[in-house]
This record gives sequence, structure tokens and C-alpha cells, in this order.
Amino acid sequence: MSLAQEMFAIAPAMGKANLSASQLKLLSGKSRWIFRVGEAGFPTVPTICITRAAWDALQSERARRDVKLRTHWIACLFKLVDKDGNPPVLVVRTSAATHNGGLMPAKLGISAPANPEDSVDPARPLARAIKNAFDSYGFGQGWTSPRQDDDRGKQIVLVQALADGEIEQFLTRNAVTGALGASPINGGPLPRLPDTIEPLVALLDAKAGRHMVCSVAIKRGQVTFVSARPMQVTAAADLEAAVDRVNRKVWSAQNAVSRVDPTRLAQLLHPRIRSTEGATPIATGLGVSPGAASGIIVFNPEDAARLRARGKHCILVVNETGPADIEGMKAATGILTARGGMSSHAGVIARITGKPCVAGVRTLSVDAAEMVCRIGDREFRSGDRLTIDGSDGSVYLGTLSLAQPHIGGAIGTLLGWSDASRTIAVRTNVETVESANTALSFGAEGIGLARSEHMFFSPERMVALRRMILSEDEEDRSRAVNGLVDFQTGDYSALFSAMKGLPVTVRLFDPPLHEFLPRSDEDIEETAASLGLAVRALRLRLERIAEINPMLGHRGVRLAITYPEILQMQMQAIMAGVRAASEKQSEPVAVEVMVPFVSTASEVAWVRERAHAIAANSGLLRSERVKFSFGTMIELPRACLRAGDIANMVDFISFGTNDLTQTTFGISRDDAPTFLAAYQRKGIYERDPFVTIDEKGVGEMISIAIERGRAANPHLKIGICGEHAGDPASLKFFAGLGVDYVSCSPYRVPVARLTLAQTSA
Amino acid sequence: MSLAQEMFAIAPAMGKANLSASQLKLLSGKSRWIFRVGEAGFPTVPTICITRAAWDALQSERARRDVKLRTHWIACLFKLVDKDGNPPVLVVRTSAATHNGGLMPAKLGISAPANPEDSVDPARPLARAIKNAFDSYGFGQGWTSPRQDDDRGKQIVLVQALADGEIEQFLTRNAVTGALGASPINGGPLPRLPDTIEPLVALLDAKAGRHMVCSVAIKRGQVTFVSARPMQVTAAADLEAAVDRVNRKVWSAQNAVSRVDPTRLAQLLHPRIRSTEGATPIATGLGVSPGAASGIIVFNPEDAARLRARGKHCILVVNETGPADIEGMKAATGILTARGGMSSHAGVIARITGKPCVAGVRTLSVDAAEMVCRIGDREFRSGDRLTIDGSDGSVYLGTLSLAQPHIGGAIGTLLGWSDASRTIAVRTNVETVESANTALSFGAEGIGLARSEHMFFSPERMVALRRMILSEDEEDRSRAVNGLVDFQTGDYSALFSAMKGLPVTVRLFDPPLHEFLPRSDEDIEETAASLGLAVRALRLRLERIAEINPMLGHRGVRLAITYPEILQMQMQAIMAGVRAASEKQSEPVAVEVMVPFVSTASEVAWVRERAHAIAANSGLLRSERVKFSFGTMIELPRACLRAGDIANMVDFISFGTNDLTQTTFGISRDDAPTFLAAYQRKGIYERDPFVTIDEKGVGEMISIAIERGRAANPHLKIGICGEHAGDPASLKFFAGLGVDYVSCSPYRVPVARLTLAQTSA
Repeated sequence: MSLAQEMFAIAPAMGKANLSASQLKLLSGKSRWIFRVGEAGFPTVPTICITRAAWDALQSERARRDVKLRTHWIACLFKLVDKDGNPPVLVVRTSAATHNGGLMPAKLGISAPANPEDSVDPARPLARAIKNAFDSYGFGQGWTSPRQDDDRGKQIVLVQALADGEIEQFLTRNAVTGALGASPINGGPLPRLPDTIEPLVALLDAKAGRHMVCSVAIKRGQVTFVSARPMQVTAAADLEAAVDRVNRKVWSAQNAVSRVDPTRLAQLLHPRIRSTEGATPIATGLGVSPGAASGIIVFNPEDAARLRARGKHCILVVNETGPADIEGMKAATGILTARGGMSSHAGVIARITGKPCVAGVRTLSVDAAEMVCRIGDREFRSGDRLTIDGSDGSVYLGTLSLAQPHIGGAIGTLLGWSDASRTIAVRTNVETVESANTALSFGAEGIGLARSEHMFFSPERMVALRRMILSEDEEDRSRAVNGLVDFQTGDYSALFSAMKGLPVTVRLFDPPLHEFLPRSDEDIEETAASLGLAVRALRLRLERIAEINPMLGHRGVRLAITYPEILQMQMQAIMAGVRAASEKQSEPVAVEVMVPFVSTASEVAWVRERAHAIAANSGLLRSERVKFSFGTMIELPRACLRAGDIANMVDFISFGTNDLTQTTFGISRDDAPTFLAAYQRKGIYERDPFVTIDEKGVGEMISIAIERGRAANPHLKIGICGEHAGDPASLKFFAGLGVDYVSCSPYRVPVARLTLAQTSA
Repeated sequence: MSLAQEMFAIAPAMGKANLSASQLKLLSGKSRWIFRVGEAGFPTVPTICITRAAWDALQSERARRDVKLRTHWIACLFKLVDKDGNPPVLVVRTSAATHNGGLMPAKLGISAPANPEDSVDPARPLARAIKNAFDSYGFGQGWTSPRQDDDRGKQIVLVQALADGEIEQFLTRNAVTGALGASPINGGPLPRLPDTIEPLVALLDAKAGRHMVCSVAIKRGQVTFVSARPMQVTAAADLEAAVDRVNRKVWSAQNAVSRVDPTRLAQLLHPRIRSTEGATPIATGLGVSPGAASGIIVFNPEDAARLRARGKHCILVVNETGPADIEGMKAATGILTARGGMSSHAGVIARITGKPCVAGVRTLSVDAAEMVCRIGDREFRSGDRLTIDGSDGSVYLGTLSLAQPHIGGAIGTLLGWSDASRTIAVRTNVETVESANTALSFGAEGIGLARSEHMFFSPERMVALRRMILSEDEEDRSRAVNGLVDFQTGDYSALFSAMKGLPVTVRLFDPPLHEFLPRSDEDIEETAASLGLAVRALRLRLERIAEINPMLGHRGVRLAITYPEILQMQMQAIMAGVRAASEKQSEPVAVEVMVPFVSTASEVAWVRERAHAIAANSGLLRSERVKFSFGTMIELPRACLRAGDIANMVDFISFGTNDLTQTTFGISRDDAPTFLAAYQRKGIYERDPFVTIDEKGVGEMISIAIERGRAANPHLKIGICGEHAGDPASLKFFAGLGVDYVSCSPYRVPVARLTLAQTSA
């Protein structure tokens, strides 16, 4: 394309625009919508555009005192002149593909150049405005790499005839409900608009497929389209709009599925306080980001990251937030600030990240250095618990019970469509009946990871588990282990029943010791009392089994091999649970026993022989009441390399991407906060590898394992059950590797369903 | 070969044995030496042999009442009859390839069979003895796999004529000095032997190439050879004998190099228990630093120093060691700990300082305050005596007699020969001038790993290092860091000077925090005082930087990137050290700066840019006084996978096989003792992967990295600097991968030299 062709009318004053394919490709931002609306025949203000490359060429031609390109430019400007032949007053606008704060606002009221030289002279109004518009693109970032320098030449500036009439702005859809029709912007009043606006609204919505801010000129009830730009609205409004477009046959269902951002879906799934009966708020601020959150108070981002790494909920309590707090806000379950309002840093970031936030609590004061805060007369320290409701701004003492969101309406419709094109199953990581029901309501197709040791997270059961961990010898341990069988049988039976024949993967015990043993003095005293031990004796035992690096210690399959009585008890309880559940339902119980933390095929063989013997002994394997399978977690680099040997012995493997990331990188997630922030700031890591899978390292390990595993056992079923299974970018990578299922936390199930539908399409 | 040919004379009463190639192949154990001696013309008692396959065939032929094979057997037995024609009295002997306890002792005084049937009838003396001899092989183990079943048929039993005369036994070489000549066995008296014994001794030694127990019959000064079997003697005696054989031109130097077992060489370089006869270990832990030590029990560094000052040997007995114990460890003769493993603080320091150490003795508990410890049921107090063997982890009551190592002589000669055929360089892991000199005396060709943080292992320097680690902010840290430059410069300069132009690889700081911070109350109080901090304030700081999994925490390159001032100080000190050393010597200083614990190429790029800038700033890079190179440790799985990217930015890579084994397996070496023993007992691991490299897992990681690294950078130099670099089996594997150098602890340097000579041959 010659540079002369990079200056052209997208909405000529007379006739229709006739763009070449390369010119069509140049259109981005406003230019695109102006062209499309004009092309559809709607009255549109005359508009031409010019690329930066063409403008630069015009300028250097001018320096050479040449006029060839200028002749094209003048001809182009003449496209703005209507049939009466009067040169119009001009407007110069940017037309950036993505909006950024530094862009020049539209420059209105520029008089048409008096002579050809004026049309390119930067000292004259028109050329000056065009130059300023191009310069303002420079405020963005990322225009430095070679590839983007190409793009830079294709940046566009628009010159329009100033529209005749009153300029009005409105949204094409309601910002909250997503309903189609001219709607007010940012809660302002809706301008009076003639009925003839409706076809424009429908036209623009269909062309853009987004909420658009639309500018029109109105003169004597006649509407002329001036410009439009997209506007970010809530995920709920976007979703309602998407479903509405399908209902109006503007989009296919497939279109809607592919155009909704799965990341934003998560924002719709907020918990709320089940009942505030009997609970009085201890303070009230502004609810600036919806949803309720309960958790431990923390005062800095590091503590928030640490708690999150341990799977604990926390509320970040600060006077006000700033850029340094963003990582902490992402890690926290909720945010509480003393200062700021709806448009404060806290509010904006909280809404973007989907975290509940209460801001501007006047009675709150925070002393971050001393790690203490006061709300009214009360003093709170790190470790105390609060509940906040970001929908109405209430703050409650302690932990209130939260009700989980349920899927329906637009989100349900969209997910229903998405399931039609999805080929990879979505399961969930849960171990309680309550969570299992939540996950089922979100569309989970099975349990991919029931961390059996988490079934002991109640005070009574924790005593039983600790008794087992702390036992001194085999006899002691056998007694403790036998005390667990009944609990376990009931738990498994209830979980199997809740899943009604959907597969349930039970991971054998994997308790990293430090997560299950008492630490504080108070906790140690309580534990000693409950175990009938002297405090001093308990401390001695704790000291003896303390580990330097518990993440890499005596856990997972190592526990089963050193203490076979634990494996035996657990397998017996699982089979008893299968029997109990199978007697109450018609579908067979689909149980999958999974061995954690293996690094050699010999470990798998050892456990498999014993697990199979116990399963066979139950007599259930020969019945139709159970579908039994056996597999392993793959969460260590060595297991990836030896996946061929391992695959020969199992029905399935499931990648534990958290531990695999920890060992592949040599990073303890618990301890990473001290350097991870600096790493991202200094550009060492592009992304947090614990959030989005590291394709080049951990990803290659997974891909090696899949290749070797499938080669050795073509029937091998392959899953992903680490946290990455709920991250859209990671899910796309896993889909490319051809896994059979993923398993994520209940709230991420809808995100995974939608993302995997998009990758299959 | 027909079964008839599997019964034949190896020393006929008349004439010479004439064996086919397949018959020669059957000879193993005693049969071999009897044939060789007879063949060489030395008078030898008539001897025939028969394989198990032939014997079994004789037996089944007998059941079938056939006599074809029996005819051959009778003919064979007639070879025992001398020219006077009298049937001799017979002896039946086993002739196993390797000796084991269940073998039948020689059965003497069997009368010759009276008729052909008697020669195969198991109810008769000869056949019964032969049957018993074959049966006794079954007591060994490992005869069950299919391949070994083939071998089973080839087992041999000997039938000899009873020798005429007095039977005497002696060793072919001295059991301690290795000197050639008839010598007493096990300290017994040497029998009176005629001078004519000497040619037999020389002959047998040359044929067998080992210390042999030789049986002869002596009648009227005439010697007849009866039998011989090898005897295991000390490594020192073996070595002296090997060198002596070369001097006598029995072996080539190359022969000697290839026939000495490098594993046994290590025994020569440490004191060892002279004899454990009559001594039973009272406990067993992990032998984490080789050599034996005897001494008085002490519980603290002060007592160790006091005893050392009085020239007394002592064993430091603690639950675990920490930085505060370093002086005590240096003062002690040996170290015994209740907790920790191979890479525990105790293990690392013990190996560096060359102190024997037994760690992780589960039955030991120490009450340092009360100055008492218990091992199992026994109580020990300061002043009681123990002997420990850091090679096998045994702990003995009282003082056992120790043998001291001596270098030079035979070992020096052999290692000199070995260097001629070796192509892979052997360096050492040291950081003090003293250790460097030890390593040089053992033939180290450079330093492959100077762990710079270990240069702070003295009380004064530890205070400076702790001040840096515990600093609260950048300013505080800069001050602490500057306080280290002078120490560092002097240390580096001294180390470079000691190495006289040989390459010195300085690893940038890599202090896992838990190894460098005070833990005991007393140590915390002292540290607080030395840092001018309140104890409470220090405890708060310690708590804040405590890590859950320090192995995977804020260490290595992560420290350099988060605290660039540390990197800057260290690089300045290194370059100042280079300058100082280069002014005192004619050879250029060959310094190699190595970045630890990298997982991404971006980390390497970040450090490289800054390190190179500081090196260039020194002005030394343009001079001839320094050869500077830059590289990384490869000790994480991700670094192996990304070795291609990394290799583009470095001159060399060096594998840290300890950490790579920890992360590939997901095992903390410190915490492994709780399950590693059970794993080996149950056959889950064939070998301890921390002792011998795991070829199928960690080995593949290394091999992937070498392949990718070399492909990206053909000039890449590749080394191994983990502990495996001192293990013969691992060294053979590394040699196969084509590494350029290995680096091990000083005491392992001779082992590596010999092993690598053998693999190159």
C-alpha cells in the first residue's frame, strides 16, 4: 500500500466510503465504529483518517519542498466538504486501539486550512492538532520493541467535520443490567433523545459487541453519529448483554461463549453473609466492592501472601491502599480501609480483582508498624478475626457464616452453551459434603482431588490425627489409627453419596507435618491435655519429629510405606465407605484411589499391591456396585521423567502443579513472598508461576510426563489438580497438552468450564 | 560343548592338562589357580573338576540305567592315578567364584570308588561329598533369576588326590605391608617352609594379582601345590602390592590403575578403626563425614577447646550443631549428633574440616544444660569415652585403637600413573587456605567450589554476616555489607595465592538462613549483644525472617537480586582479592564467578550484567593478570530444562548434584533419615540417591542440561561440584556424559583421580 492510500475518508460527506482490504485493516478504535455505522447507512459526520506513517511522510516531503503527497492529503480533506461546498469547521480525534490516560482529548473548532501549505504546517491549527494527537500516543507504554515499531506507523488520527447540532453522549446498554437501549453514563442523567436513536443503538451494539459510549449530534430531532468508544462495565452487565445478543440472534451461542472473559466470571461468584441475625456491625463504611469475606486480620502484603500460601483467609486492614499493596490485596480475601471511597485506589483495585472491600471506616485507625488497629474502643491484633460485607459496608466481629453464590440466569445460560463445545471434563477439589454440593451447583463433573487429611479439620478429629502423627511406636500408632476408621468410613460414605456416582478421587493421606501439629504455647497445652500427655513430653515429641524442610519431608507416599498400618486403615475405611454409599444408591460408586508425592515407580508398585489386596478383600471389586481405579499424583520432577514406568502400573495420573512448581523452581511458596515481589518488579518473572503455569519449565515437565505416560499406557487417564486448573491462561496450555480432565476449587469450576469451551471451539 | 567335556582334569597325575577354550571359561575360584599353577609346571596335586550340569546329567543317566556319561567320568577319575597305578585317597572341594559362609569345607580322606557304580551313587562317599558340595552353593543368595540359573549349571566341584605330606597354609603377601613372600595368616605363626616356596608365591601372585591364601603339601622339603583362594586385606596392603607388581613388571602401570578399587582408596585417607573384633556398636546413625575418632565426651564448644588445648581427643555430642558450634567442632576430634543428615550443618562443616562425624542417631538425646546424654538405655556424662566411625555411622563404647592415614609412597605412585590416562580434571570444594593446601597435596587441579558464605565460619566474621542478614533496611544493610569488604578481600587474595594460578570458582553468597542464624537462647543473647540489639528486638527480627522451608527459600541468586548491594560488595571484594594476589605472583589469577540456585535465564542475565560491570570497572579484565570467567550452578530441575538459554550467557556451568537430587526427588536430605532407612530396607531405593547419583532421574536431568547447554554454546565448560563428585559409581556416570571437570572434598580428590583414570582407559 502506498502512503497516499494511508489517508482516506471513512465517512465522506458525499457518497459512501469505499475502502481497500489494507485500509480496512488499518481501522482501530473509533475509526472502526465510525466507518461501520456510516457504511450501514446511518447518518454520520464526515470523517477522514491518516496514519502516522503517512503524516510523517507528509512532513518530510514538506521539508524537501515537495508536494506530491500533499495533493493527496488536500483531496482527502475535500471529502469533508458537503454538497454546499463550504469548508467545514474541523475536529481532530485520536483513534487508539486501547484507551490510555495520556491521549489527547478531541480538539474542536479548528478552522479549515486557508491554503494547501496550511494543511501540513505544524504552526497552523489543523497540522498542530494532528501532531499533538500522534504525540499523545507516546504516553502509553510498550512502543519500544521492534515489532511494535511497525504498529506505531499504523496509528491513526481522525479529522472530522464539526457536527451541526447538540452533542449528546449515552451508553448503548444499561451499565448494571446490561439491557439494550440508550442509558446514562456513570450515574448521570440520560439526555433527551429522539426515538430514531434506537436503530443506532442496536446497530452499534451488534457491530461492537460491547457496551459503547456513543456521541451523537442532534438537530431538530435528526441524529448524526459522531463517535463511539467502548466502556468497561461490571462482569454481570457484560454477561447479560452477551446472552441478550444471542437471544436477538446478533451472536451465535458459540460467539457468546468465545467472547466472555473467563477471568471476569469469577467476580460474579461472590459469597454473602448467610444471616446477620444476632450480629451487630461494629463499624460501617462504604461497600465499594461487593461480596462478603471472613478472615484473620493482617496489616501488610507479606503477611497476606503468607497466609494465602497456607490456604488461609485474611482481611487486609490498612489506613488506605497504594500501589505497593496490590499484591497484598490480591492475596487477601477482603480489604478494609479507614480512608477512601468508591473511586479510591482500594475500591478500584478491589473491584478489578473481585475482592470484597469496605472503605472509609471512620472509626478505624491502623498502626501498621506496631501491627495493631482500633475500631472504636476495641483493639485488634494480627490473628484476630473479622467479617466484612462489601455490598453494604458492614464490619462484624469474628467469623460469620457465609452463603455461597449460586449459578442461574445469564451465567447459567452461558455455561450451558459452553458445555456443548467442551471436551475436557471439569472436576473439583473438595473434601466435605457442603463443598461438594457447592461445586455440583457450579457444574462440577466429579471430585478430582479429595485431600483426605483435610477431613480432619475439626477439633475432635484433629486430636485423633495428632495422636496418630505423634505416636511413639507401631502399637501406639495402630491404636491411634484404629480410632480413625469410624470417622473416615462415615466421611467417605457421605462424600460418595453426595456425588451420586460421579468419580471421586481420594488422595491417600499427605499431611506435611508442620500443617498438622500444634505450634503456639496455648495450642500445645490443649493438645497435651487432649492426648493425656505432659506438656513437656509433648514438646519433646514435637521436637523429635520437627522437620527442617517439611515440604520435602516425611509425607505422602513416604508415610504409607514407613507406616503401612495407616495405608491399611485408610483403604479399609474407603472400601467401607463405598459399601455404605453403594447400598443407598442405584449408580455404582466411582472411587479412584490416588497416591501422593511419588518419585519412583517402586513406590507406586509397593502401595498398589497393598491397596489392591485390601480393595479385593472387601469383595466389592467383583460387584457392579463399584468402579475402582488406582492412580498417582505427579508432582515431583522425577515422577515426570519416570512417568512411563509409573503409567504401566496405574489407571490414571493427575498433576499436582503447586508442588511441581515448587520443586521445579526450588521455591517454597510459603517463603516466596520475600522475593517474589522484587522478582516481578525487576522483570525476572513475567508472571507469578504459582498463578499461571510456567510453560517453559514446569510445562515442559508435564509435557514430558504425558508423552511418556501415554506411550507406555495408551489407556492412561490424565488430569490436572493443582491450583493452576482454575487459571484461564494455564487451562489453555493444559488443553493443548490433551489432558482428560482438570480439577479446581468449587468457585473456579465455572471459569474452567468457560475457558475449556473456548479452547475446544 | 557336550556334557562329557564338562568333567576334565585341570592337573592330571601324569602329563599336562590340555583344556579347550570352553573348558578354560568354566574355571572359577580355586580351579583356576590350580590349573594355572600346574600349567606353569609347578608340582601340583592331581585334580579334576566337574560342573553341576554334568553331575546332574550323570545322576539322571543313572536313573535311566544308562552308563555313557559315567564312562567319561570314570576316565576322568583315572587322571588322578599316578604312574604307580594305586588309586589315591580323595578330597572333594568347592570352587566358588566368590566365597560365602555356607560352602562345604574340603572333605578329606574319601576312599576311591570300588566300582564304576560307586562313583555316581550318592549313598557312597565320593558321590555324597560331591552332592553335598554342590548343595552348599545353594546357601548363597541371588541364584534365582533366570540369567543366574544358567550360571548355576556351570558351578564346579573339585576332586583331588589327597596330597602326600604335611599340609601348610600361608599368605602370598604380607597382610599389612603387602610385601611379597610367604606370610602368616590372621596373625598366626608362619609355618616353616622350604626356600622352594618362593617361586610358587611369585607365580601365584602374578597369576592371581591378589593376596592369596595358599595350601601346600610338604614332604621331605618337596612342595606340592594343593589349592588357593583370595583373601581380602586392607586397602593399604592391596595398594602396596599393586605398585610392587608393576615394579616387578608383572603388571603394567595401566593394569595397576585399573585394578585398584577407588572406593577402598578413601579408607586410606582417614583414620580408621584398626579392628572391630569384639566391639559391638551401641548405636548407629548416618556416617556423614568419614574416618574414625575416639575421645572423651563433651557437650559444648568451650569444653572441646579446653581439651584440645591439653592435647586430648574429644567427641562433641549435641542434638544438632549450629554456627555457634563451629569452633567447638574444629576443636573436637569427632562429632556425634542426634539429628540431621548428610547436608545438615554438622555434616557440611565436618566434611569441610575433615572431622569424622556420625549424625542422626535416633536413640541419642542430649541434655546440654545438665551435661548428660542418653544412648538407648545408657547414660553418659562428660568424661566418658566413645569411638565413632563416620564411614559407616557406628558408635562404640570406650576407646578403640585407630590406624592413621599416610599419603605418599604407593598411593602417590599409583595416583601419578593414573593421571597419565585421565582426561577429566579433578578440582576440590574448599574455602580456606588450609583446606586448599590439603587438597593440593592430594592432587587437586583447582577449586571447583568455594562456598563464599563459609568464609564467615569464625565468631568475629559470623557477627558481621549476621548483621547483614538481620539488617532492617537498605541503609542498615549497606553499612553491614561494607563492614565485610575487608575480610572478604583478604580471604580471596589468600585463596587465590594458595592456588598459584590454578582456577578458583567462587560461588556467590548462598546462605540458607537457618544455617546462619542463632537458635539457642544463649546464642541469641550473645548475638543480640554483639549486634547492639535488645534480645526481644532480635527475636522479633528472627521470627520475621524465619522460613518454613529454608532449603527452598530466600537464598542463592534470589539474595543477589533482592539485595544488589550484597552482590556489589562481593564482586568488589573478589576483584580486590584478584588484584592483591596478582601482584604477588607471576601466573595470572584464574577466577570464575558462579551464581547459585538459578532457575531462569533472566536471573543469570541480571547478575551477569552487574557482575561484569564491576569486574570491568576494576580495570583488571584488560590486563594479563587475570583470567575471568562467569558461570552458574545448575542445581534445580528448571535450570536443567532451560540450560540452552542459560548456556548462551555463561562460560561454564557446574552441577550441584545435592540440591538437584533434593528437588528432583522432592526430598530434604536433612529430613530424609526418618524414611530413607525404611526405603532401603523395603527395596524402594536400590541405593541412597544422596550417595550414588540416581541415573534414571537426576542423571537424566543432568544429561538433558548438558545436551541443551552444549547445543547452545559449544565452548561451554561443564563441571560437577556436588558430593557425588567423590563417589566412584557416580563419577563413572559423569564421565560418560562428557563433563570437563569434577570437584569434590579434599579427601575425595585421590578417589576421583583414580576413578576417572579408570573410566578414561
